[in-house]
Amino acid sequence: MNKLVNSLREAIELSGLTDGMTVSFHHHLRNGDFVLNMVLDQIAQMGIGNLQVNASSLFDCHLPILEHIRKGVVSGLQANYISAGPGRAISQGILEKPVQFRTHGGRPRDIALGNTPIDVAFIAAPASDPMGNCTGKYGKSACGSLGYAMADAMYAKKVVVITDTLMDYPLQDFSIPESYVDYVVCVDAIGDPSGIVSGTTQITRDPVGLVMASHAAKVIEASGLLKDGFSFQTGAGGASLAAAKFLKEIMLKKNIQGSFGLGGITGYMVDMLEAGCFRNLLDVQCFDLKAVESLRNDPRHMEISAMHYAAPAVRSSVVDNLDVVILGATEIDTDFNVNVHTDSNGYIMGGSGGHSDVAAGSQLCMIIAPLFRARLPIITDRVNCISTPGKDVDVLVTQGGIAVNPKNKELKARLTDAGLPIIDIHRLKENTEKITGIPKKITKGTRPVAEVLSREGQIQDIIYCIGKQE
Amino acid sequence: MNKLVNSLREAIELSGLTDGMTVSFHHHLRNGDFVLNMVLDQIAQMGIGNLQVNASSLFDCHLPILEHIRKGVVSGLQANYISAGPGRAISQGILEKPVQFRTHGGRPRDIALGNTPIDVAFIAAPASDPMGNCTGKYGKSACGSLGYAMADAMYAKKVVVITDTLMDYPLQDFSIPESYVDYVVCVDAIGDPSGIVSGTTQITRDPVGLVMASHAAKVIEASGLLKDGFSFQTGAGGASLAAAKFLKEIMLKKNIQGSFGLGGITGYMVDMLEAGCFRNLLDVQCFDLKAVESLRNDPRHMEISAMHYAAPAVRSSVVDNLDVVILGATEIDTDFNVNVHTDSNGYIMGGSGGHSDVAAGSQLCMIIAPLFRARLPIITDRVNCISTPGKDVDVLVTQGGIAVNPKNKELKARLTDAGLPIIDIHRLKENTEKITGIPKKITKGTRPVAEVLSREGQIQDIIYCIGKQE
Repeated sequence: MNKLVNSLREAIELSGLTDGMTVSFHHHLRNGDFVLNMVLDQIAQMGIGNLQVNASSLFDCHLPILEHIRKGVVSGLQANYISAGPGRAISQGILEKPVQFRTHGGRPRDIALGNTPIDVAFIAAPASDPMGNCTGKYGKSACGSLGYAMADAMYAKKVVVITDTLMDYPLQDFSIPESYVDYVVCVDAIGDPSGIVSGTTQITRDPVGLVMASHAAKVIEASGLLKDGFSFQTGAGGASLAAAKFLKEIMLKKNIQGSFGLGGITGYMVDMLEAGCFRNLLDVQCFDLKAVESLRNDPRHMEISAMHYAAPAVRSSVVDNLDVVILGATEIDTDFNVNVHTDSNGYIMGGSGGHSDVAAGSQLCMIIAPLFRARLPIITDRVNCISTPGKDVDVLVTQGGIAVNPKNKELKARLTDAGLPIIDIHRLKENTEKITGIPKKITKGTRPVAEVLSREGQIQDIIYCIGKQE
Repeated sequence: MNKLVNSLREAIELSGLTDGMTVSFHHHLRNGDFVLNMVLDQIAQMGIGNLQVNASSLFDCHLPILEHIRKGVVSGLQANYISAGPGRAISQGILEKPVQFRTHGGRPRDIALGNTPIDVAFIAAPASDPMGNCTGKYGKSACGSLGYAMADAMYAKKVVVITDTLMDYPLQDFSIPESYVDYVVCVDAIGDPSGIVSGTTQITRDPVGLVMASHAAKVIEASGLLKDGFSFQTGAGGASLAAAKFLKEIMLKKNIQGSFGLGGITGYMVDMLEAGCFRNLLDVQCFDLKAVESLRNDPRHMEISAMHYAAPAVRSSVVDNLDVVILGATEIDTDFNVNVHTDSNGYIMGGSGGHSDVAAGSQLCMIIAPLFRARLPIITDRVNCISTPGKDVDVLVTQGGIAVNPKNKELKARLTDAGLPIIDIHRLKENTEKITGIPKKITKGTRPVAEVLSREGQIQDIIYCIGKQE
């Protein structure tokens, strides 16, 4: 018995896919992914239409989906993140039905609860055996963790694994077991390695970024949370990575051993593991080659599912035990609501990903952002889109000072005692506007192009159409 | 946040357990398990009754359950295997409602399909962190794989982990993630290590066993299946282990590298892995300390769930790709039906476990059994209980010759060509009866005490009451 079929077309035929069904994709191949386009092209050729696409994220490499939307092959979209390329077209109203944005924890929650049933899941697997035992750790397109694909594999009615590295049965060190997989297709390439993971992620050298990073590390040091057992997540942005570097120096100097680093994992987190700053890494997604290699070889570095990472519906997820997270923002308002969905002109160019999950779960959620970008201030009266509600955000670190959410009196006292430059967020906004001027409000349309769902599945905000297609 | 509660009583209270609900247990601690008794005693003290117990297996260490049955604490029982101690009382009619016997693959199938919902699963975990990430690989009561507990963890309404080795969060190398676990209880001891795994499992020195083992190895050699990529499962009985030893010698001599060894894993299978006879071991249950140590340390030795091992409802399980399995029998009839549920007097003393799953999945299912035990012949006209249907059994190996199921003409020809002592099963029966005489038929009662379900969930046979309580 084996599940190898001769072509993607055959797998789609066998899956029983018909008009109006829901197909799903994961984004571990990031901006190097070939699979989503390959599958949608094939579906279009087969004349199937009106598809609902549930993709954990869409990147600019997925721009061809716009043509499939125009032609009616795809008529609905759910995602946790949509990059600026496809985001712009969606903001301009290319889809009749609003996109549903979820979080990395909310997506597997809704899949598991049956709220968003998947008819056919297409799983890009860097290595698979002919029965579908598969993993992201090996193969020419290795991406590391397959954490975001696990709920799809577990709950979809049909599961198609697409690989470019076929291994002997049984695949050692599988991440997804054959028990979930219906068909396996071997293709020439599932992705472009240079787009899947960056060779290295770079720490910022920008002086503004370094000031923020230094502040961020000091906030953590002064927070009272930095002690043995400390747990930490940070993004892959340059300033966040610099903050991790400063934090590492503090932890080594003070001989503090943390329990775990979490999240999308970069080589800098691997450095911290290897230096003894953490006992373990819990990895839902690898950002660079060093992280992939570490996940493959170091048993302290563990792959986890998106459910285990961040889902609010399960008995617990790792974010519930997270001490500190450093996150970014495109906008933050004076109530500490954060926007990571739209740019300052209101165009979709991101999404929560795990942003609001880790913000909700962590003890200390820190936003790190420059006061302005391209002369547009970051702090506003009201963000254009509430991606993460202000109640889950504790502190904003900028080059012009550190603003503490008023709900956190104790944190404010600690940071003040530590001599850090604490400033009221309204004052910080005013100071910025003295430099940038007060920006014009953007004119939102009236037609909804996206619903932003909270991690528990409630509508949290609506994103409206921009430009001519309203 | 953590899920540690102060006592088992508190966990049971928090779980919401009430009269008539279903509780589940796994049997990885085998005849050293303390957890089932501990939980039922506590439930009895709390005055909860009419419970349905879904245990993957019951051993003689679980004899106290009989008192709970007598007192009405437990009124229903589902299991894949029940040893002779509790089995005798069940055969005598201690339960009003018939026991439901399933297979190791059928049990997770019915749990996953919602046919046998579990209200509270109690998971004996040799090591757990306070959030319930747990494993059998570490701790003073280490048992290795937790394969049989995984469906319970995934599908039970409430999951209580009971451990005697509490580890720091996050537990490295967890087998069951916290996302499934509601409460964690730490007790003094979850089991008696000497009963959990045997220090070593012994190869037979009995001349009859050695003859059978030698025949068994030669059957495999002549079957046409013993080539690179070969896969194999065997039990932990003395003759089966001797057969594995002979097989190992053949494989090494012929320089054959198999793909995987499967099943309950013994140190002898580990020896075969380490000698290069297999690339991998797939382990649903460890039988001895050497297997536990190998699972802990050797990445080629992988833990799998019972679902992945043997469930017929999933897209595939490993048994579907198994070449050869060696299994035992208490009786086999001239249609090759096998009984492993009852002894020659009709008393329950076993169960299918994975017997009928691997028989159905494998290319070559070999039964190895002596012609008689205590002067009672093994071969009968009709087994007292059909555990595994004859259609899934290919060959019977005894000290008096090798009987091939008539459906397998090609196998018979191969074995004959190889000069093996092939004999018709009816002739083998007659030969045996010349030695033992023809045994008296046992008198079955009319009251059903157990239903034997096939791996697909159909009633395959009924076991009737014996003795005074009919």
